[in-house]
Amino acid sequence: MASNKQLRDLVEQVARGELDVATAHSRLLDAFRAQPFEDLGFARVDHHRAIRQGFPEVVLGLGKTPAQTAAIAAEIAARGSTLLVTRASPAAFDAVRERLPDATYYPDASIITLSQEDVARGHGTIVIAAAGTSDMPVAEEAARTAELMGNDVCRLYDVGVAGIHRLLGERERLASARVIIAVAGMEGALPSVISGLVSVPVIAVPTSIGYGASFNGLAALLGMLNSCASGVSVVNIDNGFGAANIASLINHL
Amino acid sequence: MASNKQLRDLVEQVARGELDVATAHSRLLDAFRAQPFEDLGFARVDHHRAIRQGFPEVVLGLGKTPAQTAAIAAEIAARGSTLLVTRASPAAFDAVRERLPDATYYPDASIITLSQEDVARGHGTIVIAAAGTSDMPVAEEAARTAELMGNDVCRLYDVGVAGIHRLLGERERLASARVIIAVAGMEGALPSVISGLVSVPVIAVPTSIGYGASFNGLAALLGMLNSCASGVSVVNIDNGFGAANIASLINHL
Amino acid sequence: MASNKQLRDLVEQVARGELDVATAHSRLLDAFRAQPFEDLGFARVDHHRAIRQGFPEVVLGLGKTPAQTAAIAAEIAARGSTLLVTRASPAAFDAVRERLPDATYYPDASIITLSQEDVARGHGTIVIAAAGTSDMPVAEEAARTAELMGNDVCRLYDVGVAGIHRLLGERERLASARVIIAVAGMEGALPSVISGLVSVPVIAVPTSIGYGASFNGLAALLGMLNSCASGVSVVNIDNGFGAANIASLINHL
Amino acid sequence: MASNKQLRDLVEQVARGELDVATAHSRLLDAFRAQPFEDLGFARVDHHRAIRQGFPEVVLGLGKTPAQTAAIAAEIAARGSTLLVTRASPAAFDAVRERLPDATYYPDASIITLSQEDVARGHGTIVIAAAGTSDMPVAEEAARTAELMGNDVCRLYDVGVAGIHRLLGERERLASARVIIAVAGMEGALPSVISGLVSVPVIAVPTSIGYGASFNGLAALLGMLNSCASGVSVVNIDNGFGAANIASLINHL
Amino acid sequence: MASNKQLRDLVEQVARGELDVATAHSRLLDAFRAQPFEDLGFARVDHHRAIRQGFPEVVLGLGKTPAQTAAIAAEIAARGSTLLVTRASPAAFDAVRERLPDATYYPDASIITLSQEDVARGHGTIVIAAAGTSDMPVAEEAARTAELMGNDVCRLYDVGVAGIHRLLGERERLASARVIIAVAGMEGALPSVISGLVSVPVIAVPTSIGYGASFNGLAALLGMLNSCASGVSVVNIDNGFGAANIASLINHL
Amino acid sequence: MASNKQLRDLVEQVARGELDVATAHSRLLDAFRAQPFEDLGFARVDHHRAIRQGFPEVVLGLGKTPAQTAAIAAEIAARGSTLLVTRASPAAFDAVRERLPDATYYPDASIITLSQEDVARGHGTIVIAAAGTSDMPVAEEAARTAELMGNDVCRLYDVGVAGIHRLLGERERLASARVIIAVAGMEGALPSVISGLVSVPVIAVPTSIGYGASFNGLAALLGMLNSCASGVSVVNIDNGFGAANIASLINHL
Amino acid sequence: MASNKQLRDLVEQVARGELDVATAHSRLLDAFRAQPFEDLGFARVDHHRAIRQGFPEVVLGLGKTPAQTAAIAAEIAARGSTLLVTRASPAAFDAVRERLPDATYYPDASIITLSQEDVARGHGTIVIAAAGTSDMPVAEEAARTAELMGNDVCRLYDVGVAGIHRLLGERERLASARVIIAVAGMEGALPSVISGLVSVPVIAVPTSIGYGASFNGLAALLGMLNSCASGVSVVNIDNGFGAANIASLINHL
Amino acid sequence: MASNKQLRDLVEQVARGELDVATAHSRLLDAFRAQPFEDLGFARVDHHRAIRQGFPEVVLGLGKTPAQTAAIAAEIAARGSTLLVTRASPAAFDAVRERLPDATYYPDASIITLSQEDVARGHGTIVIAAAGTSDMPVAEEAARTAELMGNDVCRLYDVGVAGIHRLLGERERLASARVIIAVAGMEGALPSVISGLVSVPVIAVPTSIGYGASFNGLAALLGMLNSCASGVSVVNIDNGFGAANIASLINHL
Repeated sequence: MASNKQLRDLVEQVARGELDVATAHSRLLDAFRAQPFEDLGFARVDHHRAIRQGFPEVVLGLGKTPAQTAAIAAEIAARGSTLLVTRASPAAFDAVRERLPDATYYPDASIITLSQEDVARGHGTIVIAAAGTSDMPVAEEAARTAELMGNDVCRLYDVGVAGIHRLLGERERLASARVIIAVAGMEGALPSVISGLVSVPVIAVPTSIGYGASFNGLAALLGMLNSCASGVSVVNIDNGFGAANIASLINHL
Repeated sequence: MASNKQLRDLVEQVARGELDVATAHSRLLDAFRAQPFEDLGFARVDHHRAIRQGFPEVVLGLGKTPAQTAAIAAEIAARGSTLLVTRASPAAFDAVRERLPDATYYPDASIITLSQEDVARGHGTIVIAAAGTSDMPVAEEAARTAELMGNDVCRLYDVGVAGIHRLLGERERLASARVIIAVAGMEGALPSVISGLVSVPVIAVPTSIGYGASFNGLAALLGMLNSCASGVSVVNIDNGFGAANIASLINHL
Repeated sequence: MASNKQLRDLVEQVARGELDVATAHSRLLDAFRAQPFEDLGFARVDHHRAIRQGFPEVVLGLGKTPAQTAAIAAEIAARGSTLLVTRASPAAFDAVRERLPDATYYPDASIITLSQEDVARGHGTIVIAAAGTSDMPVAEEAARTAELMGNDVCRLYDVGVAGIHRLLGERERLASARVIIAVAGMEGALPSVISGLVSVPVIAVPTSIGYGASFNGLAALLGMLNSCASGVSVVNIDNGFGAANIASLINHL
Repeated sequence: MASNKQLRDLVEQVARGELDVATAHSRLLDAFRAQPFEDLGFARVDHHRAIRQGFPEVVLGLGKTPAQTAAIAAEIAARGSTLLVTRASPAAFDAVRERLPDATYYPDASIITLSQEDVARGHGTIVIAAAGTSDMPVAEEAARTAELMGNDVCRLYDVGVAGIHRLLGERERLASARVIIAVAGMEGALPSVISGLVSVPVIAVPTSIGYGASFNGLAALLGMLNSCASGVSVVNIDNGFGAANIASLINHL
Repeated sequence: MASNKQLRDLVEQVARGELDVATAHSRLLDAFRAQPFEDLGFARVDHHRAIRQGFPEVVLGLGKTPAQTAAIAAEIAARGSTLLVTRASPAAFDAVRERLPDATYYPDASIITLSQEDVARGHGTIVIAAAGTSDMPVAEEAARTAELMGNDVCRLYDVGVAGIHRLLGERERLASARVIIAVAGMEGALPSVISGLVSVPVIAVPTSIGYGASFNGLAALLGMLNSCASGVSVVNIDNGFGAANIASLINHL
Repeated sequence: MASNKQLRDLVEQVARGELDVATAHSRLLDAFRAQPFEDLGFARVDHHRAIRQGFPEVVLGLGKTPAQTAAIAAEIAARGSTLLVTRASPAAFDAVRERLPDATYYPDASIITLSQEDVARGHGTIVIAAAGTSDMPVAEEAARTAELMGNDVCRLYDVGVAGIHRLLGERERLASARVIIAVAGMEGALPSVISGLVSVPVIAVPTSIGYGASFNGLAALLGMLNSCASGVSVVNIDNGFGAANIASLINHL
Repeated sequence: MASNKQLRDLVEQVARGELDVATAHSRLLDAFRAQPFEDLGFARVDHHRAIRQGFPEVVLGLGKTPAQTAAIAAEIAARGSTLLVTRASPAAFDAVRERLPDATYYPDASIITLSQEDVARGHGTIVIAAAGTSDMPVAEEAARTAELMGNDVCRLYDVGVAGIHRLLGERERLASARVIIAVAGMEGALPSVISGLVSVPVIAVPTSIGYGASFNGLAALLGMLNSCASGVSVVNIDNGFGAANIASLINHL
Repeated sequence: MASNKQLRDLVEQVARGELDVATAHSRLLDAFRAQPFEDLGFARVDHHRAIRQGFPEVVLGLGKTPAQTAAIAAEIAARGSTLLVTRASPAAFDAVRERLPDATYYPDASIITLSQEDVARGHGTIVIAAAGTSDMPVAEEAARTAELMGNDVCRLYDVGVAGIHRLLGERERLASARVIIAVAGMEGALPSVISGLVSVPVIAVPTSIGYGASFNGLAALLGMLNSCASGVSVVNIDNGFGAANIASLINHL
């Protein structure tokens, strides 16, 4: 993890006699061993992530106790990084707020944030289209995430394919997108139709909305994976955050 | 299965002394025992089906030997009924043709027919829409079946949702249908979009066309069952015959 | 979405000099853009649906908050349309009733309705057969929906195939139907047997009733899709509403 | 595996001085070690099975080479036991016949037999009902097995539930059974209806007959496991042999 | 459903002039129409079941409201039939007890009973073997059912195959059975091992006991269906009642 | 589909009297009806696709007869468009070559191409990483597609995660990518590890390589959908073409 | 279960006249019948297990009532054996503590223990690596179990593959292990990567951590079974105890 | 990958002026970049694997062309490493033999080997138990692999649980094992029973042997994962090689 330049500098210092062998050797070993993360015992907070990946580590609230979530959140915020906790329960927010009073909670997206750094702005607009009202929590997770990551977001909700005119009526806004996130449960046909109308990448998010043979989103997932439109890639069921992260990566290229 | 009138006639004949007790008793028992089918040992050919269900028994070729198929076909034809064999291999047709030289084979529908009776005409047109070229064998099974059952058929092929303008360009023909059969593999979104455009029943036929996560038609099947459009009912994967039979029932109401 | 006549009128007005070019052009563009729905932000209420599909938009209560359900219901009712909310919880009804005091709740069908328009009457009777007592909530969802859509409904409950005489005893009523809805959980064999007895379309509704290897209705669903009777089409597990909607479409042909 | 009496005899012989300690000890150890089977390296032929289970070991041909099948068959026949090989290919039969010229092959049941012992006769009749013509190979595997095991067999083929009168017309024969085997593919509803008509155990055999959502017999299997009739137990898909074996056990009680 | 003798009597009465034609005709039609059940609206209680199947109709409590359960129970008891309700909650028992104060509840089997008739005794003993302590509720459902149906029952609990000596230590009791019910969750191997030790039918009951890849009993179910022992048939997951009913049928042959 | 300008021109012509009402009206209707595709009966070739989506329609060879493939290919080539047929068998190529002698076949990618137009160049490099040698056909489908669509491609094959040093040794090349396609079968872990090393979008392609519990790619598919790295989106199993198309869309932004 | 020596002694005693025939016979029979367990009715506590398997019987708390758990625990402790109850709820611990006041509860591992015997120490260290914070409960179940069984344990938590440097930074500790337990949910790639870095057995534990297409651990399970690294074997989802038991067996070899 | 000592030496050389800065820097970078494998374009042959993992890289023949297999095999053999190709077809062996005439093919294990190095001997015996004759190909893959890796192997074939005495008769040999591989298809119960008899690790290998509801080994796999015996870990269906590799790792500890 030592940079090219650091290695050369070290060698030059040794050559110039400014650095003794033992110290140089030790520093080289340190460079190999350096851990760019903080070990909390139950979690290793990754402080180099913003450098490596363009955005600080994001905390998945699911499966963590409020106390664990709060400890990780505090560690991230202490380094001055922007905080993003997804799938956060109100109880988790209560625990976070005790340590970080300025944190914000978006209940319809189940997201906790604390904006601390200038985030680079994306180049275009991310359109987030959702098939039904019930898909909104997932769509909002995507929308809030994308906004926090520096993107302009345009929301098109309740534009499912059974009333195709609703979608066709928004063609202009679809055409204005640099990348589109299409959120749908049930049969999950929205991304196919959208992808046929535009020439930008479509990130499909199946949702667990539905009943019976929707099998908690499996039907929508399979539908999207089998899209006859070739510009569609898919993320996990209900993974609004992941779709937004990918869309943001694309929008920042 | 004796009719109301037959029962009364019998009783009256006894009362009038025209029929002795033993004979009457015996006829009553016979009426209970009468089997409206021919037992071939490996198959029971149902000769009352046209009366009960409006069309003679249809033979599913799948899983039968050519000899079995031919024997059943001959039995049906011998009663003057129209013959329809689905999922018929060329070998099955060869065996049938030996017994029924006038039978016809439609290889792109894998159907053997022999028209022998006046079939009642349906009231309107059955539109058969297929998403892709590869769905044609299933669509043709539906189309040939529907035609044989006395229906006008309109074929709309390669109108998948990824190029929605292809479908929208056929709105008029869709609007002219009394019932629509929508055939699609992959994500199976076609019936949802069609159902949103019309006010007639849509029979959805998932096909096994696709690969990978299509799981031999499972993705299309689940998509159709979860249709967000409420006028869609579904038949088994690749069951073009079943869809046509239901559409014909509806078209003859 | 502009009608043929509207287009001709416009052109004639321009030809007669009654309409200037800019205005005509603008109107033409407007016609392309007109949205036949109300955008509530989280939902787009479709006010043209009754025209397009013969019945106003129906609200699926599942996955919507009571507040969202009530807002959509109020929007529909405000236009004088008949209201139908399915999968409605008592809490949703409370929210709806605050805005629409005349709304009615059927707890055994989980349906909210408010009848406001003359609905066209269907031509015949829809028989709704249910295999067991536990299938009643789904059967009632179908029955209430069908009635609200203007159909005569005949209920045959607890006629499962393990006691086939119960079903055979109702042959006459089955024979009187124009279309039949067959509701069953567990092995889901009811539609096959019924379809063999009649010559009208049978809409099969698998229910999630059962345990163990019923896998929440999967067994019944697969059974119905594989029906050896060729007049059966299938809707999603527990989708009583969908079956009734299709049956009503057929009954109004 | 030494019997109670053998143990007592041995002890008495020692007590009477007729047997020295070393020999007695050795015999006791032998009794523990005795293997009631022949080890062919790739197979251990169980020669005590007829004693323990009432019928000699049966060979499942599936997954064995013709040479392996023939070697096991020869080993069984050499002890004078009746031979039964199921799922036997013609090639396997050729290999067996070279060693056992008197063996018989039933191609429609894929069974090789060589009858060598008096088999105890069962008490009643086993009725084997099959839903369709395509289910015959499985039904015949059951029928041939049951006959070889000493049972009277009554075959009722092509009595599927979609034409319920075919089955009802055979009520008398069903009523005469001591145990019934019901063979069906597709939706697998036959056992439920039969079980409702009789008061004897019904062994259900799902078959892999069908296509699409039959998923190679899964639909029929699930249907039978979820039978609403309480006298139905189920064996593996296409397992005609197993059903016959159980039916024979019951018929010999 | 009129008997042979009733038909002959009727005809003779007409022949002797003792019965006029209209009455005779009417009686014949009545005989066809007679329903051997009571229609409660939501349920049809089958009063001929004890005659047809050897035991009165059994009520599956699952999916019924306490009020529905109590109404059906009262109807059955009113005819003097023995009552058996399975999957009965304490609330259901409270409702039943209000109408039938003599009813008994077995909480570890979730069964309500009211013994009212002499039940014919079975010929032998039904051994009920359960793999683990957690399988007891299902095993007890089977045991209580079998006892109520007139069978001697021998319970062998916690004899799973991972400690094979526990099972081998009970060989004698296994050998004494006329039919065996083997109850197991997790990998469900118990029936295979037992069936190899005995020569009587084994009814296997998979249970939903387990976690992770047991998938609520699916692993046990598949294991039992694939038993390499040929005397095993299988019922639905957790279906202790069904297994007992079949075992009782066999034990009464 | 008439453009804004065309509509205005038409109106102006009418206003200036240069166009009579009947003709204008007829042209307007024509504009609505114009189909931007060629109907071959079994296929509708989309000639506007290059305009709408940036690349001409691509032909999926799977499920089409060689004759159908050749007819569609000829139709596309006749318009001067670049031809791309995926999943093409050698027989399909033979049929295409008869009509288009200049077409090229890449057997390790199962792709037929005929380059006819200047394709816009993408901005950066698409790295295609494949886990194992067996994944090469899918990786090559992606690589050939991406190259034909105007992208620089860098192939990194046999860099699976079980020998992580192989992948880490290519870090520099990974870092140079604008977008990465990660192809893997078996457990499908490659995209997760790669995504953790870079800050660009990763398109994951599960392959059907594997055996047993790989279930034809299902294991890899699920693994990729559940990636703990947040920059991964997924396409269908073996869908190298789809991944390349999306990557190309991103690379052309 | 009588030992070789016991048998010889008995025979010698008979030969010497020190033991009469009846007693000797009886003892021989007893030796066959002796049950090395205590039958509590609902459970058979295995007191020979420590001898046979190296550690006393372990109690799976899941599916047992607190009273049952406590009774079994008391029975084990009464013999002086070390107690281990897994999947123990706080209520179960309350019941156990009443009988065994010295028992300890580890809530983050859901384990109750009571150490009573010297357990043999394993030879090396068991490293337990967990991919994420949410996997800790399973990892702790493994860690506590391994420690109680006499092993040195090294915990490496939150070392998932999406941040591969976290894992590579622990290479030294991984290299020091005699056997490794790798715990991961979601895509479950951790064991593959670890196994590629070391030359010791890796026991993989999929966890139910994740959402959507993780299907409660199925994705991780399939990923681990399909590991491209050949040193990985797998236990059931969330089965930390099983992994620790196997690792301990290996570490004690 | 440069060693600690190499780094120190380099630094010392620089300090002593024996090495100039540019060369030292370049060597350091080289050390980081060194690839311990040979890149064949379609494969990267890992020559450090024997050092890292105790045995040279093993080639999975599945999915590779004979030419690819032969090229990789030649590369491995050229370095003097022992060659092991699994899942090798006869065609693959023909291709390998052309380059490596001394290679050996085991057709019943589908394995190609070429022994070239002294392999360290394992400490004990690996017992390989297989349930049925049909499981032999998988068992032999395990046996040949284990032998090639330096282990003593004891084969116990056809010891399935339905004839438990076959297995119990081999208790002594089971007891002599240091690690056991248990191979079984169908219900896969063998490992559970074996694990209850011994105190060493059991590696379970499900096979695809079976039919119907075995679902190509899924039933056996689930059974093994749910083993009630706690010493069982599992590998992929039919993965005899993997089981042998793990057993060998354990046997060499």
